[in-house]
Amino acid sequence: MIESTNNSQIKNIIRLKKSGKERKKQKQYVVEGPKMVLEAIKLELAEKIYVSESLLKDIDGGMKALQNNRFAGLNYAAVFDILEECGYESVSDRVFKELSDTVSPQGIIALAGIKDMDTKDVLYSQYGVRHFCDDVCCMPIARILILEDIQDPGNLGTVFRTAEAAGFNGILMNKGTVDVYNPKTVRSTMGAVFRLPFAYGDDICDIIAECKKTGITVYGTGLLGKDIRDTEYKPCSAFVIGNESNGMSEAALNVCDENIKIPMNPASESLNAGVAAGIIMYHSSLKFL
Amino acid sequence: MIESTNNSQIKNIIRLKKSGKERKKQKQYVVEGPKMVLEAIKLELAEKIYVSESLLKDIDGGMKALQNNRFAGLNYAAVFDILEECGYESVSDRVFKELSDTVSPQGIIALAGIKDMDTKDVLYSQYGVRHFCDDVCCMPIARILILEDIQDPGNLGTVFRTAEAAGFNGILMNKGTVDVYNPKTVRSTMGAVFRLPFAYGDDICDIIAECKKTGITVYGTGLLGKDIRDTEYKPCSAFVIGNESNGMSEAALNVCDENIKIPMNPASESLNAGVAAGIIMYHSSLKFL
Repeated sequence: MIESTNNSQIKNIIRLKKSGKERKKQKQYVVEGPKMVLEAIKLELAEKIYVSESLLKDIDGGMKALQNNRFAGLNYAAVFDILEECGYESVSDRVFKELSDTVSPQGIIALAGIKDMDTKDVLYSQYGVRHFCDDVCCMPIARILILEDIQDPGNLGTVFRTAEAAGFNGILMNKGTVDVYNPKTVRSTMGAVFRLPFAYGDDICDIIAECKKTGITVYGTGLLGKDIRDTEYKPCSAFVIGNESNGMSEAALNVCDENIKIPMNPASESLNAGVAAGIIMYHSSLKFL
Repeated sequence: MIESTNNSQIKNIIRLKKSGKERKKQKQYVVEGPKMVLEAIKLELAEKIYVSESLLKDIDGGMKALQNNRFAGLNYAAVFDILEECGYESVSDRVFKELSDTVSPQGIIALAGIKDMDTKDVLYSQYGVRHFCDDVCCMPIARILILEDIQDPGNLGTVFRTAEAAGFNGILMNKGTVDVYNPKTVRSTMGAVFRLPFAYGDDICDIIAECKKTGITVYGTGLLGKDIRDTEYKPCSAFVIGNESNGMSEAALNVCDENIKIPMNPASESLNAGVAAGIIMYHSSLKFL
């Protein structure tokens, strides 16, 4: 049992939570909470698991944990089997508290491996919108979300969650967008970060150009542009959502195939970026779900 | 100039920011930042204004503030005139820092008055969806949002912002929903809190019943129910959004006219409440905007 906050593994987890640079270097990030950790294990993304002493006691107790509603909807015996099979480090409650973001820690944390994908991987890979077998074989329908300079970690996580729900195939982000492996973002994706293909690219205009090359129609969004009610979305489409305060850059708007806007009551100036992304994604894709 | 954090006005502002009870008792809440404060002044809701010494210097300097982009889009001379006309207290920067939620305070805070409205006021008042003149005169179209036990202050603010943008007439909340006068919520409404009629009611089922009495069709939302793609919304409709973790209560679902759901990719379990509200509001109301 790890009982000191000076333990090198503990110090490293704290570093990985705080620093995007460190995550990039070590190609690992931190996942917290039973639901997320079990999902990471299921998808073979969890590389190391840490469990608090009180959660171990609870799992041992079985019923107590059930009453506490800690693992609602999950099979306790199965959880225990999974942990035994994967192996884990036990951590004293005092030390675990230092690791956790939440006021009442749920007692389980994992280190997950970062998948290194680039824009082309998202567009052309087995997960992607275009499969290249023999010659060119296109999916009849594709939906890609492109993010430019999204700054709020919670917004980014919510956008991932919504994109998966709306049946999107992947997310492309410019490097000005906040790190998706930020613990707050990981949490608010509700697991979509594990399942949805995504990549960071250097330049937003290059990302848009790469999409257009595959035959995807790219729609910019903002306060100007065509009303979404008058837009006939192409079966293979990408939508760009811009920064929370400033929207999309002029440069990016200029290279999109078409620019669209969500109509608003004149009293309103704008929508929250996560909500705007949700409205656009569902408006364009409801008929394909 | 107020130079001590022991000043009774300063102490009171801090109390009003922290405590919902105190806000209810004093019928005042705190508004922060130039955009929100000027909007509150315009709508005659600001009852007292506090300005930091450095913002006063900036306004005096004019160009300096402009360069700092502090009052982007606003006329400086006009801002100064407004403040002179309304009267304000100047506050030392050190003390102002204690008042502000943000790391770099924007130097202006106001106390705004709480409007006391109840469910009937929202439904029948001059702002409401039904005007009673002579006999019964109905608006041809009405859109009401009903919230049950929304817990996240940011979510609530975002929902207000979206409801206004989507042309909704008002918001009704049960008392289990977080206080809209919470500083974080006020900020994330982007001013909609000043302009959109809203009220808290004791019981969610009573709120729904009151809506139905006026002839409004009430739609519950959740993971079950009719697909929104198959829903023919009535011109006068209300939509209930439930708690972030648990959704709507059984009791509330049972008294709605109809229950609807947003279709999702099977990998997803749910949507963020603010995003779900945005999708439902726009899906039901795009044609009326």
